Amino acid sequence: MNHTQALTRKQLAGDRDKATSSEMRYDWLADRWVIMAPHRTARPDDFIRHPDSIQDPATCPFCRGRETETPTAVATYPRDPSGKSASWRVRVVPNKFPAVKSPVNGLLVDGLGVSDFAVEESADESTQTERIDLFLKRELFGGHEVIIESPKHIQSITDLDQGCTELVFRAYRDRLRYWLEEQQSDYAVLFKNVGFDAGASLAHTHSQLIATDLLPTSIKRAVERMQLFFGKESCCLYCRMAQDEVEQEIRIVEQTSHFVAFCPFASRTPYLVSIVPKKHDAHFERMTDSAVQEVSWLTHRLIRRIEKCCPDSAYNFIIQTAPKCAEDAPYYHWRIELFPRLTKVAGFEWGSDCFINPISPEDAARCLRRAGVGR
Amino acid sequence: MNHTQALTRKQLAGDRDKATSSEMRYDWLADRWVIMAPHRTARPDDFIRHPDSIQDPATCPFCRGRETETPTAVATYPRDPSGKSASWRVRVVPNKFPAVKSPVNGLLVDGLGVSDFAVEESADESTQTERIDLFLKRELFGGHEVIIESPKHIQSITDLDQGCTELVFRAYRDRLRYWLEEQQSDYAVLFKNVGFDAGASLAHTHSQLIATDLLPTSIKRAVERMQLFFGKESCCLYCRMAQDEVEQEIRIVEQTSHFVAFCPFASRTPYLVSIVPKKHDAHFERMTDSAVQEVSWLTHRLIRRIEKCCPDSAYNFIIQTAPKCAEDAPYYHWRIELFPRLTKVAGFEWGSDCFINPISPEDAARCLRRAGVGR
Repeated sequence: MNHTQALTRKQLAGDRDKATSSEMRYDWLADRWVIMAPHRTARPDDFIRHPDSIQDPATCPFCRGRETETPTAVATYPRDPSGKSASWRVRVVPNKFPAVKSPVNGLLVDGLGVSDFAVEESADESTQTERIDLFLKRELFGGHEVIIESPKHIQSITDLDQGCTELVFRAYRDRLRYWLEEQQSDYAVLFKNVGFDAGASLAHTHSQLIATDLLPTSIKRAVERMQLFFGKESCCLYCRMAQDEVEQEIRIVEQTSHFVAFCPFASRTPYLVSIVPKKHDAHFERMTDSAVQEVSWLTHRLIRRIEKCCPDSAYNFIIQTAPKCAEDAPYYHWRIELFPRLTKVAGFEWGSDCFINPISPEDAARCLRRAGVGR
Repeated sequence: MNHTQALTRKQLAGDRDKATSSEMRYDWLADRWVIMAPHRTARPDDFIRHPDSIQDPATCPFCRGRETETPTAVATYPRDPSGKSASWRVRVVPNKFPAVKSPVNGLLVDGLGVSDFAVEESADESTQTERIDLFLKRELFGGHEVIIESPKHIQSITDLDQGCTELVFRAYRDRLRYWLEEQQSDYAVLFKNVGFDAGASLAHTHSQLIATDLLPTSIKRAVERMQLFFGKESCCLYCRMAQDEVEQEIRIVEQTSHFVAFCPFASRTPYLVSIVPKKHDAHFERMTDSAVQEVSWLTHRLIRRIEKCCPDSAYNFIIQTAPKCAEDAPYYHWRIELFPRLTKVAGFEWGSDCFINPISPEDAARCLRRAGVGR
């Protein structure tokens, strides 16, 4: 049991009495149920965990001065917008250990990009008439990049000032645009892993982008659910959700003029926060500079709130923007999902894909709202 | 980076060269792709992890002599089959912190069971004609039990002898039968969490059973995929898979007369092993005593193999038997899934449900086959 969980459980001990029964909530988008079981926070715990120890930063390949240890940058962002200063603030490099194959540097003929290749139909469609192949393989083409968010060896984006955070979010936007618009990838996702339990292998603050020539099944399914909602309700699912949440108030964490952050009704994990544009918008990568400034300011504050409520915990965030199949769609709405990693995916969740969330989104939102983060 | 992962990465360093490109594999059952990226084992890792420390066993509620600290047993298994010896070897108790509500002890009228209540139609169906409710809730009824696998404070089922392991598997069978046949639950799953990273909160060797009055969406989808396969191929998916794996040999770990254990072609995680009856069988809970003996012997050996290949790693296993909707189905096949927890679910996997497995099932099977576990 790590320090964070001890704190969380202690903080929440007061909720035990009112929470004697389990409740399930239906996530319409994902078409699945989530069990809310706050009383489970009182479970005993045998394990004593030690906080992560960090290796010597003198060997960190992301620090200024060790640029040769990473592949050549595909983009850099100097603080000085005129670009006259040689020093970078944000640096984007191809991942040295990519999960996908580059369309240029891979085995393909030079000069041909992803879109020049006929992509197989989805395995499902191709098996409608032929014998089902249980050993079907294909390669995955696309990009895997690392956004290095500071030349200094800091471990949290919240140690950056607002100007630098904005540069980081511009890099997110620009790189997503590159892969979705120039490279015509079918799917691109920006994600951040902070801490060992969130899947990070390096501590220096960074995010990653993966772009692929295949739409993951769960994203395809989410797109279909959004289409279904739009077909029945003549309204975008997230437009409705944002509006309902603003009206109900209880799950709202914070708002700006154009964005709202809330703990979703059927959150699978404790303290999950969705950041959503209030007005319909399918594409994160097409945001204006002023919108980027606003959403980076809000996200920075939300991460500080998470750091206050769940000190030292690992966390992830994910930017879900429209895949190619949902370009300009009236039913697709981009959002950021931010969540600390306080619970483990155990046998039941793994086997049933049905998650047990020990903290209600209403309690989580209250705790996050109260966390003081200044103006 | 914990000791286990350090070992695994070191052991696998020799595979780096041959694995310069990523490969995707299609899991027909789950209808999703998995990325095989063995070269990613060479990634740098900043974190030094400490092995789990175990609290004082003197306070363990599962040890003999502290039976009053758990709810009253619903079943006990003495070593002596005549039941004359008072001492238990395996003890089944309701979970003190259940994730589901008991149909007897909950708010329902005494004497009425799960099956006496009209269960709502699935949320999806009920929304076909009405306005979609984004804040739909319901309660979850069923059972949540703990199978305490030894009166002694041992932490691995592999410290039990064959006779005791067999008793444990009889308890699995009997409790699954109770919930599926007597209580008419819609779904019941038996799972084991070993170690903090696998979601365990107590170290004393135990498993859990959750039975519910609702079929999780992913299980429903798996049932539909199995039906689809059967409809097209006139053959059960796992019957075909077991046969193909036995023919191809490369992913087989071990076989007995009636069972085969292999690393599935599209495994989402390293060293995942499926244990499957060779002859069609939908119901784990209807096994004969001699089949229970055989599968308990095989599973015990496979866990020892995992413990050899991935020392000190957390692991889970899950018994997936036919839910009520697939009773006696010619297309549903029961299986056990066993997997150590060597990788983290990071932002990409969380966002896309597309897993990156750094170790090919063929390499995993080879390593597991070679692990010496005696006769």
